[in-house]
Amino acid sequence: MKKVAVIMGSKSDLPVVKKAIAKLQEFGVGYEAHVMSAHRTPDQAAEFSKNARENGFGVILAAAGKAAHLAGVLAAHTTLPVIGIPIKSSTLDGLDALLATVQMPSGVPVATVAIDGAENAALLAVQILALSDETLAQKLKGMKTNMRAGVADADAQLQQELQAL
Amino acid sequence: MKKVAVIMGSKSDLPVVKKAIAKLQEFGVGYEAHVMSAHRTPDQAAEFSKNARENGFGVILAAAGKAAHLAGVLAAHTTLPVIGIPIKSSTLDGLDALLATVQMPSGVPVATVAIDGAENAALLAVQILALSDETLAQKLKGMKTNMRAGVADADAQLQQELQAL
Amino acid sequence: MKKVAVIMGSKSDLPVVKKAIAKLQEFGVGYEAHVMSAHRTPDQAAEFSKNARENGFGVILAAAGKAAHLAGVLAAHTTLPVIGIPIKSSTLDGLDALLATVQMPSGVPVATVAIDGAENAALLAVQILALSDETLAQKLKGMKTNMRAGVADADAQLQQELQAL
Amino acid sequence: MKKVAVIMGSKSDLPVVKKAIAKLQEFGVGYEAHVMSAHRTPDQAAEFSKNARENGFGVILAAAGKAAHLAGVLAAHTTLPVIGIPIKSSTLDGLDALLATVQMPSGVPVATVAIDGAENAALLAVQILALSDETLAQKLKGMKTNMRAGVADADAQLQQELQAL
Amino acid sequence: MKKVAVIMGSKSDLPVVKKAIAKLQEFGVGYEAHVMSAHRTPDQAAEFSKNARENGFGVILAAAGKAAHLAGVLAAHTTLPVIGIPIKSSTLDGLDALLATVQMPSGVPVATVAIDGAENAALLAVQILALSDETLAQKLKGMKTNMRAGVADADAQLQQELQAL
Amino acid sequence: MKKVAVIMGSKSDLPVVKKAIAKLQEFGVGYEAHVMSAHRTPDQAAEFSKNARENGFGVILAAAGKAAHLAGVLAAHTTLPVIGIPIKSSTLDGLDALLATVQMPSGVPVATVAIDGAENAALLAVQILALSDETLAQKLKGMKTNMRAGVADADAQLQQELQAL
Amino acid sequence: MKKVAVIMGSKSDLPVVKKAIAKLQEFGVGYEAHVMSAHRTPDQAAEFSKNARENGFGVILAAAGKAAHLAGVLAAHTTLPVIGIPIKSSTLDGLDALLATVQMPSGVPVATVAIDGAENAALLAVQILALSDETLAQKLKGMKTNMRAGVADADAQLQQELQAL
Amino acid sequence: MKKVAVIMGSKSDLPVVKKAIAKLQEFGVGYEAHVMSAHRTPDQAAEFSKNARENGFGVILAAAGKAAHLAGVLAAHTTLPVIGIPIKSSTLDGLDALLATVQMPSGVPVATVAIDGAENAALLAVQILALSDETLAQKLKGMKTNMRAGVADADAQLQQELQAL
Repeated sequence: MKKVAVIMGSKSDLPVVKKAIAKLQEFGVGYEAHVMSAHRTPDQAAEFSKNARENGFGVILAAAGKAAHLAGVLAAHTTLPVIGIPIKSSTLDGLDALLATVQMPSGVPVATVAIDGAENAALLAVQILALSDETLAQKLKGMKTNMRAGVADADAQLQQELQAL
Repeated sequence: MKKVAVIMGSKSDLPVVKKAIAKLQEFGVGYEAHVMSAHRTPDQAAEFSKNARENGFGVILAAAGKAAHLAGVLAAHTTLPVIGIPIKSSTLDGLDALLATVQMPSGVPVATVAIDGAENAALLAVQILALSDETLAQKLKGMKTNMRAGVADADAQLQQELQAL
Repeated sequence: MKKVAVIMGSKSDLPVVKKAIAKLQEFGVGYEAHVMSAHRTPDQAAEFSKNARENGFGVILAAAGKAAHLAGVLAAHTTLPVIGIPIKSSTLDGLDALLATVQMPSGVPVATVAIDGAENAALLAVQILALSDETLAQKLKGMKTNMRAGVADADAQLQQELQAL
Repeated sequence: MKKVAVIMGSKSDLPVVKKAIAKLQEFGVGYEAHVMSAHRTPDQAAEFSKNARENGFGVILAAAGKAAHLAGVLAAHTTLPVIGIPIKSSTLDGLDALLATVQMPSGVPVATVAIDGAENAALLAVQILALSDETLAQKLKGMKTNMRAGVADADAQLQQELQAL
Repeated sequence: MKKVAVIMGSKSDLPVVKKAIAKLQEFGVGYEAHVMSAHRTPDQAAEFSKNARENGFGVILAAAGKAAHLAGVLAAHTTLPVIGIPIKSSTLDGLDALLATVQMPSGVPVATVAIDGAENAALLAVQILALSDETLAQKLKGMKTNMRAGVADADAQLQQELQAL
Repeated sequence: MKKVAVIMGSKSDLPVVKKAIAKLQEFGVGYEAHVMSAHRTPDQAAEFSKNARENGFGVILAAAGKAAHLAGVLAAHTTLPVIGIPIKSSTLDGLDALLATVQMPSGVPVATVAIDGAENAALLAVQILALSDETLAQKLKGMKTNMRAGVADADAQLQQELQAL
Repeated sequence: MKKVAVIMGSKSDLPVVKKAIAKLQEFGVGYEAHVMSAHRTPDQAAEFSKNARENGFGVILAAAGKAAHLAGVLAAHTTLPVIGIPIKSSTLDGLDALLATVQMPSGVPVATVAIDGAENAALLAVQILALSDETLAQKLKGMKTNMRAGVADADAQLQQELQAL
Repeated sequence: MKKVAVIMGSKSDLPVVKKAIAKLQEFGVGYEAHVMSAHRTPDQAAEFSKNARENGFGVILAAAGKAAHLAGVLAAHTTLPVIGIPIKSSTLDGLDALLATVQMPSGVPVATVAIDGAENAALLAVQILALSDETLAQKLKGMKTNMRAGVADADAQLQQELQAL
């Protein structure tokens, strides 16, 4: 199975990005995680992206805040699907990162998830890999079932709390 | 090869969505396009999405404007990757559709592209399908080469125009 | 008297939604509250909404955050009035939920209240039910009188504090 | 059957508000339409609202742009449900009217629809009146069926156009 | 000398509005402060505004948050200058109150100051009253001089801190 | 009677500013209008403002777009009330000018009106001058009456048009 | 004298960028203009930027729209000052390009000018080069004088037009 | 070597501005720091700016919040490059300061950096001065190398932490 690359623009993004890593581990998907910056280590980022397919990666996750160029820069150098995670930073509530990640020009798409949506980025990567991996596809189905059960549990708990009101 | 579903919330989205269809045709990717609404035909949308995998689809594209729920509703019923295209409508410049498409809760990702970014949505679908289709992967590489050449041509033309200034 | 359905997309919305429940209790309006998700339990949500009228509901309240599709999805399956409560979440201050709730396309309205405006959502439901319930209408009148008195009290208290300045 | 009041802050709002009137006529709901301004004729607006219930109205629609106070001012003087239609004007794309209409303080709700969403405002009024009017309820059901058929027609037409591509 | 009316929509606005009161006291300008709501006590607000000129007021300050209609509603009933203070509340950072206060339609102006800008609202009132009050005008001049001195002091202090760096 | 200074940052603002001039003429208020720029002629602007009181001005209107500093710069040099008119320019729909005009720091207020709200800026100036000018005060009262009549006329016209529907 | 590099992300940016070129020509500053894309020709852009200093450039201007990464990507590869021109495109009025250009992380600044502010970008480049070029510094002074004269002319013309009113 | 002027609109901006000072000290660039206000000490600000070039300054940094006019006002009086630092204040997350700083009209540019981006403002000043100072240019190169090493270190540390997961 192809691996997932989890790239973050700064180590300070790890608390958010960890949720992506945890989700990939939960699904048993191989991954590598790296700190790599579109602005401070542009050559390494370009190099990594150019070789990602040959190095066994199938999807690249890129998390960055502010003028978040990381996902776009990685997407410029590969034809693998790149998933962008806009990170909320100290101002503008992540709107800058969202727009800088999602508003890509024609020819170089970035699949953007919600601000700080690392878990969904990982799930999207799993969904992509599951297209040619029946085991993953079954696990995704199982997760859907679990989500339903989780909501049912929450509702049951709510009914109990409402009694007590 | 798996097909791509191209779903639009209203037929008035076709002028934008056409660019996705054209791109899929250019890459020789099979597709079906449908008008289907999260709000006016919710059951059909749910039904389509639930059966999409079995019906041979690998990726779903969903284009909608305003309170754009279409991509999210389709994603609720499938584990296939769903790509959301926020459509600009008569007010708010597409910001409503962007936020309603991208800000999905944990568990149900939508891969969101730029406002009116139908062409990139199709490209992203191709990138996803190309993970298990070497011919597509080669075509994507070719497209990258063509893009570079296109920029070089534009630059050459610019030099001529600058001469004339 | 018809009941009010109070649906929240996640149990984490309860601290806000509680104010709606308290207001309904204050007016003696029957209600049921449920956790139900447009994305994680779409079929249950659809089912609930389709049967709401037959099950004795007159109004549906729907609270959700981020790409808040819940109110719209419920409205798609019923002709009962649906009141949307956009919930503020960790980013964008509730603007995403507001736009995703209010900007509904023609044919499927959602009556939207302020961000985190659960109390007003309940009041709106009471106003709607009061159209055919004179007792409720009288209680609403009483509440208006109380509000006026409350402001007068606050003003009286202000005058005392100003003396002390 | 109770009537619907359709109030617009300025006669220049009529091109948008007309869609509400047309929809009310389509459903055979009685209405009165008036130009009335929260700022230029505040006493008339207050008077109208105070007497609306006694004058046979069941719902008030209020359309206004910019610092749209009309719906809130009418809601201050009645316990009838008030539906606000934010009107897009020459700047800010209607965002000012949306926020000025929807962000009401506790105690005085305004049921807000989309920017320029006059048709949905009328539909919401019909849904409210239909709670105690079985004929209206049946017509709403019919409209849902028609909407579904409309989408199916649009899809059929799309299939033909796609053949021609 | 004419008095200044300081009206707040809710007693919870007092922590901000206090700065206006303090500034008026500093300039020795007579004032009355009241809690009065455009939505919960609309008749009192209208009454107050209609009689403000005869009751010896020269300027009205109005502070309100969210869908801040207070300043506009007061302005509708008087030809006195009304100064609006948009109050930041729990969501949207005061943008809703700013737009609901400043975007007034032609014919009914509200002189709007910064979000939470109560001190400046009072100063503006003083500037207005000073047009026909030479003593106030001199005090304003004095305040300008003091402000300059305050900045000079801050700069002197900065130089000392920089030495210590 | 004191005069009103009408300052615009660029002659291209005249189409909007003209409405202020017309309104001042309508009320018979003396004025001078000038093009003066906070950025291109800062010394002239400062000089004008410093001497405005002595030169017989009572109020200063300042219209500017984009990073609209004009009103603030004039206010820095005078204790006269300064009214800011944010002008909509080619991007951002006037939001930049609004924020740059209204968000003034403590000590230097600018009385801000709506984006492109030149007419209201003039009315506000008239309201200010009318505090010590009974004739103006009467004219303002007359204008309120006319506005009411205008709305009544519009309503009458609406009733006729509705007949024809 | 060092040259200025004028880089645009797409040839469609030329109508805006032309104003920068015209201004550089007016000041007699040498320049090269190129179409170069952060996303479609990332290697060429990197290469150009890495060698810019050695190739005689002193300042780089970068114009791009949407998720405008061009200025940031160029800045990543050089220690020359990079000036970013956010270009307004079909949605969001240039806000996306502004935030994607200006919100750079620590270590890699981009000197950002107004949306579509190509002329100012060129002027800023001239100001930078003028630090070590007395002739340019004199020309800048002359331009300031001309701007003042231009405003004076506009004011004179205004006075004439006002006579005619 | 020319000095850098570091101007802040209020001493409360120092916690942010300190990062600019520290960076200038790190590069051994001479500077002067001052509190100076566009609104409270406009004459001093104008005077300072007019004489800045003659007083040995090469670049001016200006930090201000809210309706941030400081950078623009300084730029109005000099032909030196002026770098604007928008400061986040208690509301609107710095968006007001950003727009008020960056959206300058043609003829008077301000080189704007990110909200609270004081460190980058200093770096930009160093880049500008380095155009005619080879030692500074070498130091900038060194900083780029250090940044790369810093990212590599962060990545190494990440690998260790991932082991421990």
